[in-house]
Amino acid sequence: MDDTEFRKQHRRALAEDRVSGASQLARQALDSLAEFAGSYPASDVAELRRELLAFAEELQFARPNMAPVYNLAERFAEQVDDIDTSDVLAFRQQSAAAAQNLSDLSVDAVAGAATAAAPLVPNGSVVITHTLSSTIRQLFEQLGGVETEVIVSESRPGMEGREQARYLAHLGLSVTFITDAQMGVFAGRATVALVGADAVLADGSLVNKAGTFLLALAARHHGIPFYTCCESFKHSPFSPEGYALEETAASEVEPPRHRCIQGRNVMFDLTPADLISGWVTEEGIQSSSSI
Amino acid sequence: MDDTEFRKQHRRALAEDRVSGASQLARQALDSLAEFAGSYPASDVAELRRELLAFAEELQFARPNMAPVYNLAERFAEQVDDIDTSDVLAFRQQSAAAAQNLSDLSVDAVAGAATAAAPLVPNGSVVITHTLSSTIRQLFEQLGGVETEVIVSESRPGMEGREQARYLAHLGLSVTFITDAQMGVFAGRATVALVGADAVLADGSLVNKAGTFLLALAARHHGIPFYTCCESFKHSPFSPEGYALEETAASEVEPPRHRCIQGRNVMFDLTPADLISGWVTEEGIQSSSSI
Repeated sequence: MDDTEFRKQHRRALAEDRVSGASQLARQALDSLAEFAGSYPASDVAELRRELLAFAEELQFARPNMAPVYNLAERFAEQVDDIDTSDVLAFRQQSAAAAQNLSDLSVDAVAGAATAAAPLVPNGSVVITHTLSSTIRQLFEQLGGVETEVIVSESRPGMEGREQARYLAHLGLSVTFITDAQMGVFAGRATVALVGADAVLADGSLVNKAGTFLLALAARHHGIPFYTCCESFKHSPFSPEGYALEETAASEVEPPRHRCIQGRNVMFDLTPADLISGWVTEEGIQSSSSI
Repeated sequence: MDDTEFRKQHRRALAEDRVSGASQLARQALDSLAEFAGSYPASDVAELRRELLAFAEELQFARPNMAPVYNLAERFAEQVDDIDTSDVLAFRQQSAAAAQNLSDLSVDAVAGAATAAAPLVPNGSVVITHTLSSTIRQLFEQLGGVETEVIVSESRPGMEGREQARYLAHLGLSVTFITDAQMGVFAGRATVALVGADAVLADGSLVNKAGTFLLALAARHHGIPFYTCCESFKHSPFSPEGYALEETAASEVEPPRHRCIQGRNVMFDLTPADLISGWVTEEGIQSSSSI
């Protein structure tokens, strides 16, 4: 495959993935960049750097609502910019090492965020969560023997909640599986709402899979706290004003066929900061009362 | 089929119907009662009255969250109690006439409620609604040429929203079809939220298909009014305290198979009165500011 085709395929895989979480996709982007750095047939460092940075920029904007894709590609580009060698092989190795190092940082940050969230889930908690989050998974892995129940909503149309429910059940947790429409009822039976994130915007508002905002509203109504837990690479410099939510193929929602019916498939929603009790990252818990 | 089998089958059809609205099921119950009154092999009026009232009571409690089933069966029983004849044939005829009359009253009340709601949907409105409601359908039929857009959510797991979307599209309306999880996003693009009801409780709180409460929360958040529109036969004497929501087969939500995963399928939710801007019936609009 030539390099144009390589870039196109890797960008498309990133853009069209409907199941993987943002952290996972960001690390996948770094893998693609490392592979490109190692294989692009450049005759000198200047050309390789230029093409690599162009590819990083393509990937950076392939998933506009997934902050770690943007942030890690940005960090990678900065480091590639700073590589000081005229040897093509050395440049390839240092680029790949930069990608691997950022990927490792992200893995550690996710684990650190999960660790920091543990105090939010004392023995006897009933946690309600929406969709799939690898950070929430890791939290429950780390909690080990703590007795908790988890309520998981399915997350139409992708049904990522099914995979989350299965994973948590394999850990031995007691899992209640509900439709998204039942989140209002079941938030009233939980002690805490806890979700991952695709992005946390500059003002603290949360971008996450559609339905998260409804869960936050229900949590507030029922008087239970609502936390988001994610690596700090998900914190984004953008503000919610004019922030565009990714929309994808309407066919996934299977609209009835009729010339007057238009299906819509907005993948994410925006939960305003004032509905959030606290933000957990590898750096700890920042509660709404402290900002 | 003997009468015991007849009663069992008709009660079961009512209990297991996951698609029809509450008004439709109430009228179906009245049809069953009229048929039973005409066919039960009684030797005298006392026996026929006793069996008919017992059947009415069975049907009355077959759908505890659907107020018109309760109310119309109750009204029917009162009228059957008052029939003053010792002639079996006359009793059969008067019972059937009572059922038909109540059914007609319900049909008129639904149409009246739809008429009363029309001022809530001026030209250019963008209405967001959840699940299927025959009253909301009639409202749009009556509106005729008024230019409106309607956003309809699918209403998992029964997907009654699909049928609602199709019906409204056949009327020529521009319909946007979304997952339930997207209600938070799309409430922000609507000018009014308008739903039917399964029951309106004594304090004004609304029992309707699961997800309605989430829509009401989103409507409040986005600052658009939220109305419920139904025949007054849906008004219930019960209070929300201790009110039990109907739950049905978890298999409908297709939970992943695992011994630690329990699917739940609570069909309805409860929207507190303070999230409701107004209640529309055939008697007019009662707004929250007037109570």
